[in-house]
Amino acid sequence: MSRYVPSAELAGRVVNGEVYAIARLISRAEAGLTEARAALAGLYARAGRAHVIGITGVPGSGKSTLVSTLAARLRTGGSKVGIIAIDPSSPYSGGSILGDRIRMTDLVNDPGIYIRSMATRGAMGGMARATMDAVDILDAGGFDTIVIETVGVGQDEVEIARASDTTVVVSAPGLGDEIQAIKAGMLEIADVHVVSKCDRSDANRTLTDLKQMLTLGALTADRPDWQVPVLGISSYTGSGFDELIDALTRHRAVALHTESGRRRRVAIAGFRLAKTAENLLLERFARASSELTPDFAERLVRHEGDPYSLANELVAASFGKEDP
Amino acid sequence: MSRYVPSAELAGRVVNGEVYAIARLISRAEAGLTEARAALAGLYARAGRAHVIGITGVPGSGKSTLVSTLAARLRTGGSKVGIIAIDPSSPYSGGSILGDRIRMTDLVNDPGIYIRSMATRGAMGGMARATMDAVDILDAGGFDTIVIETVGVGQDEVEIARASDTTVVVSAPGLGDEIQAIKAGMLEIADVHVVSKCDRSDANRTLTDLKQMLTLGALTADRPDWQVPVLGISSYTGSGFDELIDALTRHRAVALHTESGRRRRVAIAGFRLAKTAENLLLERFARASSELTPDFAERLVRHEGDPYSLANELVAASFGKEDP
Repeated sequence: MSRYVPSAELAGRVVNGEVYAIARLISRAEAGLTEARAALAGLYARAGRAHVIGITGVPGSGKSTLVSTLAARLRTGGSKVGIIAIDPSSPYSGGSILGDRIRMTDLVNDPGIYIRSMATRGAMGGMARATMDAVDILDAGGFDTIVIETVGVGQDEVEIARASDTTVVVSAPGLGDEIQAIKAGMLEIADVHVVSKCDRSDANRTLTDLKQMLTLGALTADRPDWQVPVLGISSYTGSGFDELIDALTRHRAVALHTESGRRRRVAIAGFRLAKTAENLLLERFARASSELTPDFAERLVRHEGDPYSLANELVAASFGKEDP
Repeated sequence: MSRYVPSAELAGRVVNGEVYAIARLISRAEAGLTEARAALAGLYARAGRAHVIGITGVPGSGKSTLVSTLAARLRTGGSKVGIIAIDPSSPYSGGSILGDRIRMTDLVNDPGIYIRSMATRGAMGGMARATMDAVDILDAGGFDTIVIETVGVGQDEVEIARASDTTVVVSAPGLGDEIQAIKAGMLEIADVHVVSKCDRSDANRTLTDLKQMLTLGALTADRPDWQVPVLGISSYTGSGFDELIDALTRHRAVALHTESGRRRRVAIAGFRLAKTAENLLLERFARASSELTPDFAERLVRHEGDPYSLANELVAASFGKEDP
């Protein structure tokens, strides 16, 4: 049995870039351990240096392959790259990592790459909170670029991809082109649109459709300082990645030095605070209500009240005189 | 434009079995409309008559086909059957219903069958609450059997399938048999195990594996009054459905008249109260914090505090002197 390393000690080792400490502290953030909070709070002060890139797209859009190739390219340029993959099927994450990440075998022995899969369920809806804590940990640990990869199904996943410095939406030809990004509400969140699999002959159609849709729209109206590019890439031939890296770098520079970029950082901070606060609130309620709930449940079974009024009463009784 | 029908009026029409009113009130429950709460609370008093069956299994296990066939059989026996399908890919629910439910075309013109897909995201984690409200609405509307179908990925989905009178776990041959139910933590929640696709030659192996695993286990220790059956069915040949319906009926009778059945109803009521209370709490917080959050977000961006301490402060400031 290895000893329990206090989170404060882990945090110190995170700052030295120790991968073991990074992995353990992310696990504690994911589990929502109270003991880890002071350490995470401390690391926040050291974070804010990395470029955080959210990458999303529907299943089959080629996200994971793009992320692998992009990471390898950035690595060649000397950057340390962290990848956080949000896995929607939590109980299967073991299998899913294997399936999804098999292409990443080239990367996994490189200490300048860190790949991590996060569960999406449980932990009191704390996925967004935990993901943002994990970003801070990697950031404080010296990772230059941190990619948050989410599958673009589900509001939570799309929101997390959006809560980054630069959001990339990946579309692929042949998936019912014009509608895939719209359907998930992903069209308007993209700072950069990428069409993957551009070695295929039908990719041009997807590129044209996307460009047309963007010119139609007030979609980019909240980006006064940035023209959303639509880039074609092929992970197979390697084409388009120079342009993608260039677009990511340019977008970051714009975001750092404009008022619209600052407004976005404030919006992300608000999202993060809301998620963290919700998490704290639900934890406190779970603690405060645990002894009272069985009695209330008996009353509900006996139909001595309805679910709404009894839940209301349970909240009041749990917090009593105290504020939550 | 049709006029806005008050929820109280809809509730009255639900009790008369009007499908239009049922559909609208479920939508309001799903949206978490405050205006609908008194009506939903009122319907709770009229619910509790239906047999609620949770059916879950991994993707590809043949759940939807089983549910369709089961519904048709129960219908032949004279029961009114409601089906609530929990769809994990909310933004695609349109497409998903179509894909999943195409086999149900025989059923959709029968007024004794009601099929409804629920979104899994958004609404402040209110999926469980909304689903249980929908069950009450169908129950009060005269549906005799209500099937909650969830895909067995994700803790929330499995929990909802469990929060029913009788939980059925579906496994299929050829999916990596022995492990599929275990992986998702579904093995122990089953009151009835079903192996689908028993027209296939490899189904026997799945049946044997499952039976063996059940005899091994303390898995059924919390079911003193019930021996968990493992049934083979084929929606293709129709075999096994008589046995399944018999098992469901027997399980219900046992659940209604034993102490273990009562304990389960209390546990489900506790789960429901917790979910409803969490929902209320998050709504109140969202309301109370909305004006304060931008200021706190500015402070977080300026690093005048960390996410945890600022979230804590935001909760305190939102609820002020008031209890939540």
